[in-house]
Amino acid sequence: MTEIKPDWIAVDWGTTNLRVWAMSASGTVLGQGSSDQGMGQLSPADFEPALLALVSGWLGNGRIPVIACGMIGARQGWVEAPYTSVPCPATSTGFTPVATDHPDLDVYVIPGIKQMQPADVMRGEETQIAGFLALNPGWDGVLCLPGTHSKWVHISANEIVSFQTFMTGELFAILTGHSVLQHSVGDDGWDDDQFSQAVQDTLARPERIAAGLFTLRAETLLLDLSPQAARARLSGQLIGAELAAARPYWLGQNVAVIGAGHIAQHYVNALALQAVPATLSKGEKVTLAGLTAAYRSLKG
Amino acid sequence: MTEIKPDWIAVDWGTTNLRVWAMSASGTVLGQGSSDQGMGQLSPADFEPALLALVSGWLGNGRIPVIACGMIGARQGWVEAPYTSVPCPATSTGFTPVATDHPDLDVYVIPGIKQMQPADVMRGEETQIAGFLALNPGWDGVLCLPGTHSKWVHISANEIVSFQTFMTGELFAILTGHSVLQHSVGDDGWDDDQFSQAVQDTLARPERIAAGLFTLRAETLLLDLSPQAARARLSGQLIGAELAAARPYWLGQNVAVIGAGHIAQHYVNALALQAVPATLSKGEKVTLAGLTAAYRSLKG
Repeated sequence: MTEIKPDWIAVDWGTTNLRVWAMSASGTVLGQGSSDQGMGQLSPADFEPALLALVSGWLGNGRIPVIACGMIGARQGWVEAPYTSVPCPATSTGFTPVATDHPDLDVYVIPGIKQMQPADVMRGEETQIAGFLALNPGWDGVLCLPGTHSKWVHISANEIVSFQTFMTGELFAILTGHSVLQHSVGDDGWDDDQFSQAVQDTLARPERIAAGLFTLRAETLLLDLSPQAARARLSGQLIGAELAAARPYWLGQNVAVIGAGHIAQHYVNALALQAVPATLSKGEKVTLAGLTAAYRSLKG
Repeated sequence: MTEIKPDWIAVDWGTTNLRVWAMSASGTVLGQGSSDQGMGQLSPADFEPALLALVSGWLGNGRIPVIACGMIGARQGWVEAPYTSVPCPATSTGFTPVATDHPDLDVYVIPGIKQMQPADVMRGEETQIAGFLALNPGWDGVLCLPGTHSKWVHISANEIVSFQTFMTGELFAILTGHSVLQHSVGDDGWDDDQFSQAVQDTLARPERIAAGLFTLRAETLLLDLSPQAARARLSGQLIGAELAAARPYWLGQNVAVIGAGHIAQHYVNALALQAVPATLSKGEKVTLAGLTAAYRSLKG
C-alpha cells in the first residue's frame, strides 16, 4: 500500500453527505473518500471525528490545510462562517478558521453568500461558481446549478451580481415521497416526450401550474398513466415552473449548467426547448476547482 | 342512559378518519361518533369491525340502512363503488351495497365522480355537493371545497358540469412537515397582511410562483421573518397559485365555499380580495344533508 501524503485536503460538507479529497499543491487528486456524515445529523462534538474517520490515514506528516465548503459553515454546522453579501467577487475570500484537537488539522471554512433583496442564501454553490470561473476565466453570463435547491446566478466581470434559489429538487422529492403522487410516480424511468410537453405547457401557461399536479394522480386512476410518464411529466412541470420564474435570468443570456447526472441534462434539454443553448459542466470537477482556488488564495 | 335507536346511520369514511351519526328518518342527529380508523390504514377484514366499534350500541333493533361516502368506496376501500361520470346529476344515485357479517347492517356506499378530460376524480365531495344543493334548491354557480385536495365544481341546473382538483392542502402539509421550510413556518399563528399580500402578489404574477418558496427560508435567516408571518405567507402563496389556475371557475361567478375552520375562511378572504363575494357553508352540515338526501333517494 502506497502512503498518501497530501499537501492539503479538500472538503465538500453538505447537509446529507461528506466528501473529501487528498490534494497535491498543484491541484492533483491523490485520494478521495466520502460518507453519509452530513452536517444535518451531527452534533458539535461529532464534526472532527467524522472528518478524521475519512482523512486520518492522510495525516502524520505535519500540519496541513483543510479547506471546506458547504452547509458545514451554517449556524448549525462546525463553525458559523458569516455570509459574504452580493455583489461580491466570484472568488471566495475571508475563510473562517476552525479550532481542532488534532495537531495536523488546519481547517478553514469558505463563507456562503447572501442577498438581502430578494432575500436569498447559498452555501457550497459559491465554491462551484469560483471553480467554474477558474476553469473559464473571464466568463460572463448566467450559471444554473440544479439540485435540491437550484440556484440561478448572474455573473458579470468576475462578480456575483445576483442570484435566486428554487426548491425544485426538494419539491420533487417530497411530492414523490410524501404526497398522494407517490402512488403515481415511479422511482425511475423516463419519457422524453412527456417531459418536453410538460416544460412547454408550463412555460406557455404558468398561471396553470397548480392545476397539473393532481391530474397525474387522476390519469393514473382513469387512463393508466405509466409511472415513468408520470415521473417525467412531474419533473417537466416543476422545472417548467422554475424556468417560468427564472426567465429574467436565462432569456437572451449566455447560460452554463453545473451539475451531475440526469437532472443537469434535463435542465439543458429544457433550456434547449426555449432556444437557449446551455453548456454543461460536471459538479464535482468545478467543486474541486473552487476548493483549489480557495487553497491558492489562502497560500497566496 | 337513554338508548339510541336510529332509523339509519350516516357515515363519512375518509382516508384518515371515520365519522358516524345515528339518524332519525327525518334527518335529526340522535348521536355521533368518530375514530382515526380511516380507510388508509385498514385491511379488507378491518372495515366491519372498525364500523361496529362506533355503531354497535345503536344496533339490535333489526336491519337498518348505513349510508357511507368517501374514500371507503375506493379500490383500496371496503368495496369499490364505480365512479359516475360528469356531467351528472348533483344528487347521487347508484349506491354500491356491501356484504356484511352483522345481520343488522345494510351498508351502501355512494359512488365518487370522475371526469375524463382533464382527468380528475372525487370521493366524498359529491355528497357535500348534493347536500349543499338539498339545502339551497336551484342554486347555480361554482362550489369551492378547500381541503387536502381542494375542489372547484361548476354546478348548472342541478348538474355537476366539470370540476378541478388542487393539491393545495397537501402541498402546505408536506412543505411545512418535510421540507427546509419546516424550520421557518410556525405550527400556528397568522398574519392577515402577509396572507393578503401573498395572494395578491401571486395572482398578479403567477409565473413567479416557484420563486417565492425559498425566499421564506432566506427571510427567516436574514430578516428574522416570524414563524407566524411565514405561515400566512406560504398559505397565501399556495392559495394564490390555486386561484390563479382556477380563475375560469370563479371569475364573474356565483361562488360558495364549503368547509370548516380557518382554512375555509382564508379562501373566502382570498376571493374577497378579487372582489368575489363567496358564501360559507359548514362542511359537516352539508355532508349530513348529502347523506340524508342519499338515504331518502334509497328509501324513495
